[in-house]
Amino acid sequence: MDHLAPHDVMVVFLALAALLASAKFAGELVKKFNQPSVLGEIIAGILLGPTVLGHYRPGVYALLFPHTGPVALVLDGITAISVVFFLLTAGIEIDLASIFRQGKSALLVSSFGMVVPFGFGFAAAGLFPRFLGADDGTDRLVFALFIGTALSISALPVVARILMDLGLLTTEMGTIVMSSAMCDDLVGWILFGLVLGMMNPHADAGHGIRHTIVLVLGFAVLMLTVGRWLIHKILPFIQAHTTWPGGVLGFIFSLTLASAAFAEYAGIHTVFGAFITGAAVGESAHLRERTSEHIHQIVTNVFAPLFFASIGLHTNFVTNFHPGVTGVILGVACLGKILGAGWGARLGGMDMRTAIGVGMAMNARGAMEMILGILALQAGLIHESMFVALVVMALVTSLISAPAIRMLIQDKKKFSLKDIVSSELFLPNLTSDTKNGVLKEMCDIAAPLVGNAPERFFRLVSERERVTSSGWRAGVAVPYARVDGLLRPLVAIGKTEKGIDFGSRDGRPARLIVLILTPDNQSQHDLLADAGQLFSQKEMVDRALAANSFVELAAALNAPVK
Amino acid sequence: MDHLAPHDVMVVFLALAALLASAKFAGELVKKFNQPSVLGEIIAGILLGPTVLGHYRPGVYALLFPHTGPVALVLDGITAISVVFFLLTAGIEIDLASIFRQGKSALLVSSFGMVVPFGFGFAAAGLFPRFLGADDGTDRLVFALFIGTALSISALPVVARILMDLGLLTTEMGTIVMSSAMCDDLVGWILFGLVLGMMNPHADAGHGIRHTIVLVLGFAVLMLTVGRWLIHKILPFIQAHTTWPGGVLGFIFSLTLASAAFAEYAGIHTVFGAFITGAAVGESAHLRERTSEHIHQIVTNVFAPLFFASIGLHTNFVTNFHPGVTGVILGVACLGKILGAGWGARLGGMDMRTAIGVGMAMNARGAMEMILGILALQAGLIHESMFVALVVMALVTSLISAPAIRMLIQDKKKFSLKDIVSSELFLPNLTSDTKNGVLKEMCDIAAPLVGNAPERFFRLVSERERVTSSGWRAGVAVPYARVDGLLRPLVAIGKTEKGIDFGSRDGRPARLIVLILTPDNQSQHDLLADAGQLFSQKEMVDRALAANSFVELAAALNAPVK
Repeated sequence: MDHLAPHDVMVVFLALAALLASAKFAGELVKKFNQPSVLGEIIAGILLGPTVLGHYRPGVYALLFPHTGPVALVLDGITAISVVFFLLTAGIEIDLASIFRQGKSALLVSSFGMVVPFGFGFAAAGLFPRFLGADDGTDRLVFALFIGTALSISALPVVARILMDLGLLTTEMGTIVMSSAMCDDLVGWILFGLVLGMMNPHADAGHGIRHTIVLVLGFAVLMLTVGRWLIHKILPFIQAHTTWPGGVLGFIFSLTLASAAFAEYAGIHTVFGAFITGAAVGESAHLRERTSEHIHQIVTNVFAPLFFASIGLHTNFVTNFHPGVTGVILGVACLGKILGAGWGARLGGMDMRTAIGVGMAMNARGAMEMILGILALQAGLIHESMFVALVVMALVTSLISAPAIRMLIQDKKKFSLKDIVSSELFLPNLTSDTKNGVLKEMCDIAAPLVGNAPERFFRLVSERERVTSSGWRAGVAVPYARVDGLLRPLVAIGKTEKGIDFGSRDGRPARLIVLILTPDNQSQHDLLADAGQLFSQKEMVDRALAANSFVELAAALNAPVK
Repeated sequence: MDHLAPHDVMVVFLALAALLASAKFAGELVKKFNQPSVLGEIIAGILLGPTVLGHYRPGVYALLFPHTGPVALVLDGITAISVVFFLLTAGIEIDLASIFRQGKSALLVSSFGMVVPFGFGFAAAGLFPRFLGADDGTDRLVFALFIGTALSISALPVVARILMDLGLLTTEMGTIVMSSAMCDDLVGWILFGLVLGMMNPHADAGHGIRHTIVLVLGFAVLMLTVGRWLIHKILPFIQAHTTWPGGVLGFIFSLTLASAAFAEYAGIHTVFGAFITGAAVGESAHLRERTSEHIHQIVTNVFAPLFFASIGLHTNFVTNFHPGVTGVILGVACLGKILGAGWGARLGGMDMRTAIGVGMAMNARGAMEMILGILALQAGLIHESMFVALVVMALVTSLISAPAIRMLIQDKKKFSLKDIVSSELFLPNLTSDTKNGVLKEMCDIAAPLVGNAPERFFRLVSERERVTSSGWRAGVAVPYARVDGLLRPLVAIGKTEKGIDFGSRDGRPARLIVLILTPDNQSQHDLLADAGQLFSQKEMVDRALAANSFVELAAALNAPVK
């Protein structure tokens, strides 16, 4: 039996460790700037790939990511499994019912948002095939269909992420965009399945297309009707007769692997099978949230980063960057999507600003685009310059989406405690043993930070304190005051071993004191509400009290209580 | 760049689907017979491997699991990653602190439980190397050390599982066995790391051993002291500054992959690195339960089954089964472990029966044994007959452990509701609208099942009902009675749309009626307590009320409320 030699095993693990560690690091870093983590993950791959590491340290690059031999094959296999798992979770997120629930508006946005960019892309590829890199041997029709499809899809996970970050996910606009993006995803993947099938070298032209249409539509329709119904019936049976959630997890993953194998056999790539299976599984009300949570967390945090980082390994993003091709693709993609989806939104009765906002949201391509690009590159349908153009287009459209929507639709960012606490204002060892003493101590530290007199802060806080006592229950006190002229809210968190009487209802002395100072009533309201939510949980209070450093405190505030 | 051809991709996914689906199915099946799931997973692999599928359907076998070429390499790589992930979770379960907490008894059990079987194994391999399959070229010392090590380890996950099933995990005996098994695991893996290092072809004999001892001990000691401390410091920092649990998951998996690569580089195999890393990570109080739960669920339900099933692919378990070798290994293994660990337990002050029980519990080998076996087989240290003997020994010791302990230490099995409910006694549509009518309806179905008169059942239940009203809160009523002459408890679950007055404290009419009939007070007490625990959760009541079939009801009862 063929086995990996010890050296190969070492290289495989080293390569995976390097990919995962740098992808997660870069992904978290870009999140700090409110960008989707996939951006960082791809940049990490570009840094480790031929573009940077391969250019400056070709020896290290060749050791870690050999282009041929067992290691290359194993890494290719692991990437294939990673993307299949990722598409499974993407499919689970699709909510078929909600697409229909949104009715007319969603249908308008999604159909216009697909047809217009598809038409633009198809036309561009049909008119200038050579410029866009189609070889003489390439089937022009397939090429044009591919470009059209590539420009017409939206990336559900990225769109969801952007709307969530902007606080728009549950608004009417948000649900319409989400439903339309789901619909686009579904139709886009079916279209792409067709394009891939048409490239299938085993099938001859005419017969191939019919055969593929039957297979793709047949698989999608069967899986989403009969398959969905069967899964819905089987899941409670599995939950009743096997250990939970082990049996369900085994079932879902086995089914996904089998569907992926079938889709590949049918000539329409593994990812399509995984995506449709995910959509069918995710529909069942019997799939418990905790089961899908396990899948989601491990896949999005381990397998997806591995896959997205591996994108950067495929080519040199500098030498293959063709400004003309990239510009055309980017321009056509944005124009088509924003016009199309915006037009649909207008027809659905939205005002102009919101309609353009919808267009901008739908314009984010993200992950799906790149999966399409890789498959087309591997199938020899597109050149590396077009692949780079698609990846860049996906990144840029994802990047501009959030700021553009923010500009169009004024959103009021909510203030949250964990974003405002700072290490200077964490006072783990308060020394006073009276209420006023403690408040003075905290104002003494807080006021100079913003060039204010401690006396003024203390006066405002203690005035407020006279009106309502700030002792909450379970040993928490939250004194607060509005301070005119502050530029930003301040939150000081103090701990005392002694326990100070803040007049709480349960009579318990306060050991955790959260002082909130804000320039206006809005942020004060937000912060009080946030503190109320956080510290109503006993475990959170315990964690905060146990924190001996600011890092531990921030860790406690940042993670939800189980 | 080397890529998998579409056909190879298809085969990889098909092979993985077949392995996972059959491993999970067989694993769940043997669990029904109170056996560890690893047993079923290995049997599934044997069925798919050369032993059965390869023998009867060689064509299908050769298609699914080719011995050479890209598919073999990719499957080997995925197996290598699966076992590394499995050892990570095994390491996380190790609780270093508790080993020391148990003090003398645990140390006696663990040291005698290692030294005696190690001595027996070493002696047997030293005296009869040819019989046990050592070639002329094999280093006799290394071979004897390997056999000694292989017989001396215990399998923590299997031991834990057996104790849990017997309800002994939290008893004094249970904690001592667990601490000793952890200690054995740790020392066993360090020993095995040494043996593997000594086989390292790159190092020459004398220098090799010293070099390996330094590397293995150095890695283990550094990781469990400095590494552990660093991880404990870094985890809250990651939790504070990254999304949760994504950042932590990325960190743990990156670290594991890197440690695995380092261990392989040092010549002491990836699994050792993963196990020690898991032990170090699991020690940190900052590792949240939910984070390790995500890892645990996906790894034990997806990757571990893949790995254990793949064991069966390595060889033909019929042609390579050598009764003599297997018998010797099995006999020496059981004798050494039971005597050694039992002796240690006696010295620690346990009575004879409990001491033998401890020996039987420690005797379960399970997963770890087979990982050792595979690595030694791949390294050419042992023959296939010895590999089969080790796998059989691991299976048999795991199998006999639970029944033997059960015989030695009488345990009273608790009755639980979910084991007793049956489809005949699920009445989703009660028609009466009075309490007595509903009770009659249920007795009418229940009594004939056990050859009793419905009138008798109804009389007993309504007598009991006059003493205390059986209406609980939130729409649940639990009427019950003791029925002399029953051979087993009966539980009938009925639902009614109407809502019947059962005199509950909150005044709400009952819609879910759980009728409990038992032969004795013991089982009645257990079942009432179980019902109380289950239906104090509102979500569980809702789920039971929403169940329209027995399968849905069983699913609801079987899975914990989130």
